[in-house]
Amino acid sequence: MSNLSYTIIGGGALGGYYGGLLQRSGLPTRFLLRSDLEHVRQHGLRVDSKHGDFHLENVEAYGDPSELPPADVVVVALKTTQNHQLPDLLATCVKPDGVVLVLENGLHPERDAAAVVGPDRVIGGLCFLCSNKLGPGHISHVDFGHIDMGTTSADTAVHERLEVIVADFNAAGIKTRAVTDLRQARWRKLVWNVPYNGLSVVLNATTDRLMKDPDTRRLVVRLMEEVVASARAAEDVTIDPAFVQQMLDYTDSMVPYKTSMMLDHEAQRPMEIEAIVGDPVRAAQAAGYEPEAMKVLIEQLRFIDRRNCGQ
Amino acid sequence: MSNLSYTIIGGGALGGYYGGLLQRSGLPTRFLLRSDLEHVRQHGLRVDSKHGDFHLENVEAYGDPSELPPADVVVVALKTTQNHQLPDLLATCVKPDGVVLVLENGLHPERDAAAVVGPDRVIGGLCFLCSNKLGPGHISHVDFGHIDMGTTSADTAVHERLEVIVADFNAAGIKTRAVTDLRQARWRKLVWNVPYNGLSVVLNATTDRLMKDPDTRRLVVRLMEEVVASARAAEDVTIDPAFVQQMLDYTDSMVPYKTSMMLDHEAQRPMEIEAIVGDPVRAAQAAGYEPEAMKVLIEQLRFIDRRNCGQ
Repeated sequence: MSNLSYTIIGGGALGGYYGGLLQRSGLPTRFLLRSDLEHVRQHGLRVDSKHGDFHLENVEAYGDPSELPPADVVVVALKTTQNHQLPDLLATCVKPDGVVLVLENGLHPERDAAAVVGPDRVIGGLCFLCSNKLGPGHISHVDFGHIDMGTTSADTAVHERLEVIVADFNAAGIKTRAVTDLRQARWRKLVWNVPYNGLSVVLNATTDRLMKDPDTRRLVVRLMEEVVASARAAEDVTIDPAFVQQMLDYTDSMVPYKTSMMLDHEAQRPMEIEAIVGDPVRAAQAAGYEPEAMKVLIEQLRFIDRRNCGQ
Repeated sequence: MSNLSYTIIGGGALGGYYGGLLQRSGLPTRFLLRSDLEHVRQHGLRVDSKHGDFHLENVEAYGDPSELPPADVVVVALKTTQNHQLPDLLATCVKPDGVVLVLENGLHPERDAAAVVGPDRVIGGLCFLCSNKLGPGHISHVDFGHIDMGTTSADTAVHERLEVIVADFNAAGIKTRAVTDLRQARWRKLVWNVPYNGLSVVLNATTDRLMKDPDTRRLVVRLMEEVVASARAAEDVTIDPAFVQQMLDYTDSMVPYKTSMMLDHEAQRPMEIEAIVGDPVRAAQAAGYEPEAMKVLIEQLRFIDRRNCGQ
């Protein structure tokens, strides 16, 4: 295990779970919290997990980013809809040679952090995690949890740091691997995220319903194929067409699942529609490819999001 | 006024309104009813209309199509989702030289009647009517009501009959005109019906909401343009691109409006998705044109329809 210090920004289902595991493993870990701050200061952090429940009684929790001691690794565990806060949040909490690890959804979630600390100090992570927040400081880990980490930087230092973080995460019980092509990894995850997140909200349906109906199943396939075509057009990223079938098989084998966008919608939180659907559509269009079904989806989602947030 | 006899199949908001006006004008008119039969036999038919309320105390109402005396004009005032009943309904109630007037939505609603009585005995009518059924035998006419009538037959007899029916309808107070190109008229009406009926159900929104939001407004325009392109591809029907803007202006000027498909959906009745969206999509695809946004819409609507009808 390294001697790196970690700060987790966000105490949600993702930040609470991964941050809790890092602290439990003995790594110096701090949390920047908002709504849960007082509760966690008093009662600590509880994680119910299929790998074993645990309770951290003493959690170093902060509410003001300017009071955070600078850390070697600042983990952004927010929704991309909160990324406009990153300039304030990251202003002083990263050591001069520290890095920011962005554990968010979407096509380019690292860009907002890179705008603050520079592209050679940002690492991205794709989390395959199924967890929920049950209450303040109380996380339920349902399934999965592995992370694919990578960086688009060519800088040697950030790659070395990436290797250490991967080792720390694995030592903490988080299956993590370094990926050489972060862009491809992001696009591959979008092959799943675009159809299921988008359609689950528009049609108010769990994944099993979308897969069982022949029409929505056909629409899921077409959306996946459009993401594959967008990846090639926008960033010359190649995704094997067989990957579409793998994603269908994977989803068929899942239990009925509410996507994160569906949960956000039900809780009347802003949905990550621009990061998950809007950015891929814009990237494709900028390269001259029109993903027609994705365009319908983003227009429908924006309408629903505005209505849901009372606009 | 002619001496033609009329039979109205269907006592809904459309059949009740037009049939009521025909009977009031003195034309021999009969009704084939189902759920409203006993009520109408006992209490007659009430029409509340912005042009004046009226009450027909004695209505010749039938429940069994085989008991109907054959008529010169049989008016099909059903939903297209009931068209599978037409072989039974039309078997004996049309005179040997009679015609069937199909007052339904969609691209080819006349085809099911033509399969029973032959294409040279079928007339189609596009109704621009805003009416509701308030209860058994009780219709509320809200606005509009004019009809465009035409036939795709080249037969002289059916064209002569069409002229007489148009005159009868106008004499009864129903603004009606003969159109020379029924196909074009059907496609033009679909320019409105496809986007507003479809999106109103998928997004649970009245027309004003769809127009006010910039994203759904853009989607409405794209769907309209796809209907125009489908008309050209499928049947070489030309619709002036300016017609799209006319439909937008028309809808902007309307009061907030629930489409017929939205009302069917709310009442958990089957929606006319195949007649209004499915048939145009299939016609376009058969001609080699893929209307991508319409394809998304039909797949979403079929999913919603199956779920709504408990499948």
